[in-house]
Amino acid sequence: MKSSIMVIFGGSGDLTKRKLMPSLFNLFKKGRLTDDFKILAAGRTENNNETFRASINESLKLFLPNEEQNETQIERFLSIIFYHSMDPSNMNDYDSLKDKLWDIAGKKGDYLYYLATPPSLYEIIPLCLKSVGINTKNSRVIVEKPFGYDLESAKRVNSILKESFEENQIYRIDHFLGKETVQNILAFRFANGIFEPLWNRNYIERVEITAVENLGIGDRGRFYDSTGALRDMVQNHLIQLLALVAMEPPVAFNESEFRNEVVKVYKSLAPIKPEDIPSRVVRGQYIASERDGGRKIKGYREEKNVHPDSHTETFLALKLFVSNWRWDGVPFYIRTGKQMPTKVSEIVVYFRPTPHKLFSSRQECPEQNQLIIRIQPNEGAVLKFDIKVPGSGFDVKQVPMEFTYDKLGGLPSEDAYSKLIEDCMNGESVLFTRSDAVEASWAFFDPIIEMWKNSKNIPLYGYPAGTWGPLESNAIIEGGKNWTNPCKNLIDTDLYCEL
Amino acid sequence: MKSSIMVIFGGSGDLTKRKLMPSLFNLFKKGRLTDDFKILAAGRTENNNETFRASINESLKLFLPNEEQNETQIERFLSIIFYHSMDPSNMNDYDSLKDKLWDIAGKKGDYLYYLATPPSLYEIIPLCLKSVGINTKNSRVIVEKPFGYDLESAKRVNSILKESFEENQIYRIDHFLGKETVQNILAFRFANGIFEPLWNRNYIERVEITAVENLGIGDRGRFYDSTGALRDMVQNHLIQLLALVAMEPPVAFNESEFRNEVVKVYKSLAPIKPEDIPSRVVRGQYIASERDGGRKIKGYREEKNVHPDSHTETFLALKLFVSNWRWDGVPFYIRTGKQMPTKVSEIVVYFRPTPHKLFSSRQECPEQNQLIIRIQPNEGAVLKFDIKVPGSGFDVKQVPMEFTYDKLGGLPSEDAYSKLIEDCMNGESVLFTRSDAVEASWAFFDPIIEMWKNSKNIPLYGYPAGTWGPLESNAIIEGGKNWTNPCKNLIDTDLYCEL
Repeated sequence: MKSSIMVIFGGSGDLTKRKLMPSLFNLFKKGRLTDDFKILAAGRTENNNETFRASINESLKLFLPNEEQNETQIERFLSIIFYHSMDPSNMNDYDSLKDKLWDIAGKKGDYLYYLATPPSLYEIIPLCLKSVGINTKNSRVIVEKPFGYDLESAKRVNSILKESFEENQIYRIDHFLGKETVQNILAFRFANGIFEPLWNRNYIERVEITAVENLGIGDRGRFYDSTGALRDMVQNHLIQLLALVAMEPPVAFNESEFRNEVVKVYKSLAPIKPEDIPSRVVRGQYIASERDGGRKIKGYREEKNVHPDSHTETFLALKLFVSNWRWDGVPFYIRTGKQMPTKVSEIVVYFRPTPHKLFSSRQECPEQNQLIIRIQPNEGAVLKFDIKVPGSGFDVKQVPMEFTYDKLGGLPSEDAYSKLIEDCMNGESVLFTRSDAVEASWAFFDPIIEMWKNSKNIPLYGYPAGTWGPLESNAIIEGGKNWTNPCKNLIDTDLYCEL
Repeated sequence: MKSSIMVIFGGSGDLTKRKLMPSLFNLFKKGRLTDDFKILAAGRTENNNETFRASINESLKLFLPNEEQNETQIERFLSIIFYHSMDPSNMNDYDSLKDKLWDIAGKKGDYLYYLATPPSLYEIIPLCLKSVGINTKNSRVIVEKPFGYDLESAKRVNSILKESFEENQIYRIDHFLGKETVQNILAFRFANGIFEPLWNRNYIERVEITAVENLGIGDRGRFYDSTGALRDMVQNHLIQLLALVAMEPPVAFNESEFRNEVVKVYKSLAPIKPEDIPSRVVRGQYIASERDGGRKIKGYREEKNVHPDSHTETFLALKLFVSNWRWDGVPFYIRTGKQMPTKVSEIVVYFRPTPHKLFSSRQECPEQNQLIIRIQPNEGAVLKFDIKVPGSGFDVKQVPMEFTYDKLGGLPSEDAYSKLIEDCMNGESVLFTRSDAVEASWAFFDPIIEMWKNSKNIPLYGYPAGTWGPLESNAIIEGGKNWTNPCKNLIDTDLYCEL
């Protein structure tokens, strides 16, 4: 049953304005909502329908691309939006919410709740919904990350959610999985006959997953300082990417089969022993510096709402192993950071070198074959392979073969949120994170968090803004190799280069 | 020992003017000849050094690209050229040749003989050289194709050559092997770790080799009518391409190891039984027609110096099998023809489809992965693979990933002849055809030639100019599939299309 109303807790918050409303407008415009679809925003801020609609009108102008601005359509869209002032943490406020909900959407029960609130409320709202009986069988609930702060808190939230909803009603949204290029990893691996035979320890030497930003934390100091790179990026998004790269072919691409395979990967992650943490996990924090030829950058500890003695990591590089028949012994490297040279997310698969060197006179680039899957920007894929250098002799040289989505006219403007919200409304949960996956991921990362908390002498390296993080992060790569540092463009004329 | 003189039999002929002199000039200009290098052209035409140099001066102006014309350098080049009038078929003329040779180049014996003559002279010149003792130990001889007309004649020529020269002095030139993109097949296969594991019957479904021209036979009627597509293209060039695609990795890239592997492929070719010839070998001949929107084209039988009832094939398509552990059951298709829609040579490797269809909702292009190695024009390679179609749902679609030599600034202007002549002067024979290869290839093709000669009821299909040959040629492809017809450009926006 398709949801006919979305109730947004945190209705006057930032996420609602920036992401949810533009996405809902996008679906509305394309006729992908039910005819009688309504939006009920609930929040502490005092508003009535009119003032709230006016504020959404403003924010749409700000956050919709110019070419999608259409006054008539926005007008019509605003008319399906309603506002309810309430304190979501107060159970007593839920009777009036129920009345409003029934009033607007009837009692069919096809409600979609979106928890765009601080995570502390995840432990309250589900119980309140249950207390007034609007956790109906046909309702669904979308939960924003973070899904807990560690294994214990994740289990607690999961168990509270499950007091009010069945697992198949709970949609943990990870917008990374809504990205075209992330989903395309599956197509890449499982719709092509040529990659799967190579996709194992016999032919792959190592995998690097990089997702970095060229900005600092901005005004998100309060949030970030209690979170850090591991919780913000690695435990959820990047480990998902790793799962897509490493998973066995699912029997089918559906919520149970696909998500079973994701969980299997998490359960295959070889636990990092406490004594190995220093040599396999490198954390960093950006320091006051100049970047890009002179622009002054505050150090992380000087950012607003950051503790001046903060040990929160803004950079993290780690080495993982997936202990199973396919991957045993193949290192997976994950790296994320703020204030890096560029904003880029990509996966680099290094294939093993040829077993026998037929052309001994290699002039340059004595590199292995590489497959690069670029998540963003300049989305696409590159296969680096060797050719004969034109001219006399028989030297070989590495060149790139590339595909970019530009060639298909670019990616659709539709963002990950639209895609995922629509999936949820249709009851398709394959791209959402299941509770066992959340817990399996935390189970792997908990020891690192513990270690950091308990031994103050685990180094936290400072790194200047505009660099690829602490140099120590290269030391985790086996065989004296370094991280592959991508350029802003997918293909540089001189192949990839250090920025 | 590097050759210090090239003696060209057929010195006033077409090949000398068009190919040999421009190539020698090219090597001369780049300082890749010995300091005292000389050229002695020998032929029946009456000439002295001066008149001959004048004629070469004319032809260089015609056949050298404008940017390589340089009067001073041409002047200097002409001064190393000498001419000797003689009848190469007359043994009595060789004493004077010897005197001239000794006079110009001394008695060191580092002579290079180039037989740019009608093949009938291959059976005479070597013996004449021997008769006057200038088949020295350090001399070399380059023989132009055709290397015989069938197995018997090939054996005869080989045995005559070997009466005067050792096998390692004999250089059978196949200019196809001098092409960058042909040599690159070896780099592609053996300098990359990722292709070899897929390069066998488990992952490759079929291989297509196409080398077609968009012109007729021009004024080469006399030659062509006694030759035909099989002898002109297939028995030498295209079977070489097949060998490069199908060969086992050589122990080393040298004359013995590499050429041993080529011969092994020829010996692995499953003989085509006479009763299978009609269903596996399709021959055609172009007929009077209009092409490219109205241009009138003569039928082959109306061309100058072609027998009006000629059964010579101008088109040939055939299906071969390489019977060994790697390739058993994988069909190799070879196709060549005159008056086709475009001029193109390429190899298309079709990989098997995925064993399990995870994404059942395939919208379009339900094609397997393909690797296309483009020999010419727009030299490069394309890998066709599937991606997720951007947008909702999970449809997949085939897109190309491409590399072209343009990205390296194009291929060097140096032609195949320069490369091969220089190799020969240096005593590097790896890219020349060995006698056992010639004979093994003829041994395979002889039954087809026999069959054509003896049963007049084997069809010879007419086809209009500007088409891809007789439609019957598609019938040899297994599984109801058709030939892949390339566009003029390596990558068409709409992928490959029929012209």
